[in-house]
Amino acid sequence: MTGRDLVVLGTASQVPTRHRNHNGLLLRWDGEGILFDPGEGTQRQFTLAGVPPRRVHRICVSHLHGDHCLGLPGMLQRLALDGAGQVVSVHFPASGLPYVERLCDASIGRYQPVRLDPIPLPAPASAAAPDVPAVPVASQAPHLVAEGPPLRITALALDHTVDCLGWRVEEPARRHLLPDRLAAAGVAGAAVGELLASGRVQAGGTTVTLEEVSEVRPGLAVAVVMDTRACDAAVELARGVDLLVCEATFLEGESFLAADYGHMTAREAATVAREAGAGRLVLTHLSARYPSPDGHLAEARAVFDDVVVAEDLAVIPLMAAGQA
Amino acid sequence: MTGRDLVVLGTASQVPTRHRNHNGLLLRWDGEGILFDPGEGTQRQFTLAGVPPRRVHRICVSHLHGDHCLGLPGMLQRLALDGAGQVVSVHFPASGLPYVERLCDASIGRYQPVRLDPIPLPAPASAAAPDVPAVPVASQAPHLVAEGPPLRITALALDHTVDCLGWRVEEPARRHLLPDRLAAAGVAGAAVGELLASGRVQAGGTTVTLEEVSEVRPGLAVAVVMDTRACDAAVELARGVDLLVCEATFLEGESFLAADYGHMTAREAATVAREAGAGRLVLTHLSARYPSPDGHLAEARAVFDDVVVAEDLAVIPLMAAGQA
Repeated sequence: MTGRDLVVLGTASQVPTRHRNHNGLLLRWDGEGILFDPGEGTQRQFTLAGVPPRRVHRICVSHLHGDHCLGLPGMLQRLALDGAGQVVSVHFPASGLPYVERLCDASIGRYQPVRLDPIPLPAPASAAAPDVPAVPVASQAPHLVAEGPPLRITALALDHTVDCLGWRVEEPARRHLLPDRLAAAGVAGAAVGELLASGRVQAGGTTVTLEEVSEVRPGLAVAVVMDTRACDAAVELARGVDLLVCEATFLEGESFLAADYGHMTAREAATVAREAGAGRLVLTHLSARYPSPDGHLAEARAVFDDVVVAEDLAVIPLMAAGQA
Repeated sequence: MTGRDLVVLGTASQVPTRHRNHNGLLLRWDGEGILFDPGEGTQRQFTLAGVPPRRVHRICVSHLHGDHCLGLPGMLQRLALDGAGQVVSVHFPASGLPYVERLCDASIGRYQPVRLDPIPLPAPASAAAPDVPAVPVASQAPHLVAEGPPLRITALALDHTVDCLGWRVEEPARRHLLPDRLAAAGVAGAAVGELLASGRVQAGGTTVTLEEVSEVRPGLAVAVVMDTRACDAAVELARGVDLLVCEATFLEGESFLAADYGHMTAREAATVAREAGAGRLVLTHLSARYPSPDGHLAEARAVFDDVVVAEDLAVIPLMAAGQA
């Protein structure tokens, strides 16, 4: 399977609404499927999206609040029922292990086999005594979750009310042949194969090297930043990504709630995208208090151009920044 | 609050479909709310049905297969979030206690306080050695779940692949005044109050007794019979009820599957209703293999007249049999 996109399964914060299910994001990257934060009802959202659940190979749970994890048992039962076969890796903050274990044995029946990957987090700044300087979040070493091929996945601790992880998914930089330079050098047909195999080829009475007719381009990158206050780690995760999916629970009018409950406003999310030099920003995890996403769009667009508000069952293609 | 009805929250078997969520039934009986089998997504179905979750005072879990219980954590979190206040009784087969305990602590956050009521089941017939006569299910004494006012709730073990309970909810018989007899006896106004208070009153030169101008009518009764093969216990639970909600996973063409997986066909469910002398039959828990409910309706109506197939978000009024 080829194709890379993000299937939006749910976009609600805390409580679902008529139009927004609890969280759920499926990142399809050629044959790989990474499910982020399966909230309650995620299994059915696959059906409504027309996507078979067995596309899931890996599940990343940002934290163990119910709206980000209560769909895990249903997904693991469904994968077993559908005969998916693969062992599914489940990544989550280590302090959440007792919850994940209970979720993996929550009802009678067969569950897809899992490889549990509890990720230890640095002590959060908020846990430090007031007179002890907090370790700056930016000084965290990214936790290596998976090293491709095809993908490298890293995680950083965010700044929520409980241990919470943000994710960065990227492919390695790759060399791309440049058709105009190939043509100018007179390299075509079988000579291209020789060039790729040996790094050089004779053409037009001279030696053409691979470096002369190609360039190295960075791979695509995606960041998923769920429940957190604005923080350096969010910016680090999103640094230069093509797509940033970011929580934006509140608007600036409720910034005091955002601070209290460990969330971002739409403006803060857009500021993270701008500081990180992200390509496109997708806002999600909207509080049910807002009847329309218009406020989020307006607030974010004042800071960052390429922004959309995620809607349930939308499919967002993943492409290099600037190609949209 | 007055009014009695059944809010259908979900009607799927095993896997949800576009139009059928996992199980969920809310019986509203004046101020009481009894939730049966909260499958995954039940919390959101309340929102779609326009019913506040805090209407739930009691939760009856027939058995611990995921499609009947994975919505429990979300409901208990939602009740706490909404400030419902009440301690919620949760009734379930005793062998399911470890699962219920995990469901009540499945993610970080506050859960509505619960009173767990594990109900011991007689050893199922299928567990008996082949040469030992199974204890007939009909010989079970009903388990008293709750004794009103206003309601009496009893349970009987059904015949599924795992321990499973069916439920009967009924109100006590009550004396009703008969307006035509009151008028014939010349009892009106303040005399009615005296009649009710003392059991007799003077009217038209004679003594009129309460018994002469009233009759005792049985209270309304409802049975909820989920995952089971046809069995005596299902008939006992449904004996003379005004409304029987009954699983009908399969059609007769798949009766071999029904037998293997411990379920009923639509014809079998209708036969239970007929043998029990039920008023109205509501079929639910339909297998996703059937694209339309027409087969279920036709098969059941050949055996029993007053039958409907439950559809998600339908509200079915509860009234005495024959008053529909």
